[in-house]
Amino acid sequence: MAVTIRDVAKVAGVSATTVSRVYNHGELVTEETRERVRAVAKRMGYRPNVTAQSLSHGRTQTIGLIVPAPHGEFFSEIIRGIDEVTRAADHFLLISSAHYSLSENEAAVDALRGRVDGLLVMTTHVEAQQALLDGPSLEIPVVFMNSPVTDPAVHAFQIENRRGAYEATTHLIDRGHAHIGIILGPPDSQDVRERVAGYETALREAGLDPASQVVIPGDFTQASGFAAGQKIRALDVVPDAFFCCNDYMAIGAMAALQQAGFRIPEDVALAGFDDIPSARYSTPPLTTVRVPVYDLGRQAAERLLTLLKAEASTAPRSQILSSELIVRSSS
Amino acid sequence: MAVTIRDVAKVAGVSATTVSRVYNHGELVTEETRERVRAVAKRMGYRPNVTAQSLSHGRTQTIGLIVPAPHGEFFSEIIRGIDEVTRAADHFLLISSAHYSLSENEAAVDALRGRVDGLLVMTTHVEAQQALLDGPSLEIPVVFMNSPVTDPAVHAFQIENRRGAYEATTHLIDRGHAHIGIILGPPDSQDVRERVAGYETALREAGLDPASQVVIPGDFTQASGFAAGQKIRALDVVPDAFFCCNDYMAIGAMAALQQAGFRIPEDVALAGFDDIPSARYSTPPLTTVRVPVYDLGRQAAERLLTLLKAEASTAPRSQILSSELIVRSSS
Repeated sequence: MAVTIRDVAKVAGVSATTVSRVYNHGELVTEETRERVRAVAKRMGYRPNVTAQSLSHGRTQTIGLIVPAPHGEFFSEIIRGIDEVTRAADHFLLISSAHYSLSENEAAVDALRGRVDGLLVMTTHVEAQQALLDGPSLEIPVVFMNSPVTDPAVHAFQIENRRGAYEATTHLIDRGHAHIGIILGPPDSQDVRERVAGYETALREAGLDPASQVVIPGDFTQASGFAAGQKIRALDVVPDAFFCCNDYMAIGAMAALQQAGFRIPEDVALAGFDDIPSARYSTPPLTTVRVPVYDLGRQAAERLLTLLKAEASTAPRSQILSSELIVRSSS
Repeated sequence: MAVTIRDVAKVAGVSATTVSRVYNHGELVTEETRERVRAVAKRMGYRPNVTAQSLSHGRTQTIGLIVPAPHGEFFSEIIRGIDEVTRAADHFLLISSAHYSLSENEAAVDALRGRVDGLLVMTTHVEAQQALLDGPSLEIPVVFMNSPVTDPAVHAFQIENRRGAYEATTHLIDRGHAHIGIILGPPDSQDVRERVAGYETALREAGLDPASQVVIPGDFTQASGFAAGQKIRALDVVPDAFFCCNDYMAIGAMAALQQAGFRIPEDVALAGFDDIPSARYSTPPLTTVRVPVYDLGRQAAERLLTLLKAEASTAPRSQILSSELIVRSSS
């Protein structure tokens, strides 16, 4: 006969509610009690059924996270921020990747429904917001991160892309450069569109023509930055400087240029975007725009937990996290 | 009145089973049908309850993954490998971090129980295996990755740490170096213990005394490697070469040494371990030991999916993935 929660409670000398709390990550159980209950449960062969529990009390103690891709330092830092907050609140994190696809984003929402108490969503698709709001009601809170959001009723944390790119480009102009190329990112990314807009505005304000600059494609990976660097070093006239739409590509381009004997920043100055951990350990260290990626994850997770407690929040629903130009030796 | 699965089936012109499959990520539904059913369901306001479904058919279509930490390029690459396999098989991935703690590892297992069909576990604790096997039976398959496992009945994929470190150190000796220091990793890590053992064996075989070498602590982060580099450059006598227990630390040390004017490899040669993507984009590119991290994730996930299908051909076994010395310009 299966061991019940009451059997465990009796032997452990606690109430059934306490045993239940131990297996539902409740916050009201001391570490000592938790360990005693677990030891007794283990000895008696008790098997909690979390799925059944989540149905009975309506809470899964789980946060769903949908990201475009589950790897790389940018996502890694966001996940680190979210993980620290959810862990401190005894919540689990269910991570799903939409692989930059709108239909996969919808499929992820479908599959997470019923398994999570709330959703954190990062997407590159403006349609994703509408699909979430128009679709079969989720009945759970959603917080968007770094995503195209237009509805003022939506909770969202955004990154200051345009101003960051504007400042990085202006910095390169202030250093005396007049030929400033750009390494792009994935074309359907809102981040990229905004960064390109900031770059172009800075050029125009300085009387430089964006249309006459060298434009090299990229996809945010180090490998695409390395390929961009190979293209740059083969140009008849190599620009003085490049604004790169993220750090990974700047680091890849730096490697390709240095391997061909180009000195950074003397021959080509480089500026990146994001300030991922690796940016400070290149030689020379990378000038970049610091995006508070870790804080983005923390703040979005904290907002979602507040919404789950149904607490009245006076904070604005849409919040923009400031970017900051970090000048290092690559420029 | 709530819209039922039968209502959706009727309007979409398919069977109720097909609708159910769409929301359970079954493999027998064409993309076209899937889209039609989703569109109808959305229009009708149908809300599938995945938790209830998982109880009724006993499968969650979800794989649980427990890792020591959910960030950094090493884990990122493993997650990429696992994600690609689970995604292709229409399974979800529930990622939980144990933060290098044995009790958190147990808590993660408790919380994942009932929510997943199978578990992938990476841990640094030898006790974790026993806790999983002795505890309240999971009744789901478990595959260990890069973890201390002694029971031959356990499915496990291991990395060739000792031989990799031996080869990297032997390579430094072959380059003519006689003073070869080491930057360590977290002391409770099996990986580190095995890598140190391989390093020491290579030294001894070459008639060099491990006890007379410079040993610098580290914790696998770039920051700890940078701090190690600062210590190295302050030494009265700087060793010819360093074997670093992972790439992140080698990259950090390289930055600190270069900033003080040391040339790599002329003044100090460096070798790392892992071959993370960043290793090839440092200047100079890093000599390292390639660990098939992405393949480790892929193969472990494939094994777990095979076990879930309860195919006969899956005797428990431990498999060791070969490491490979990659000589680049840092040595």
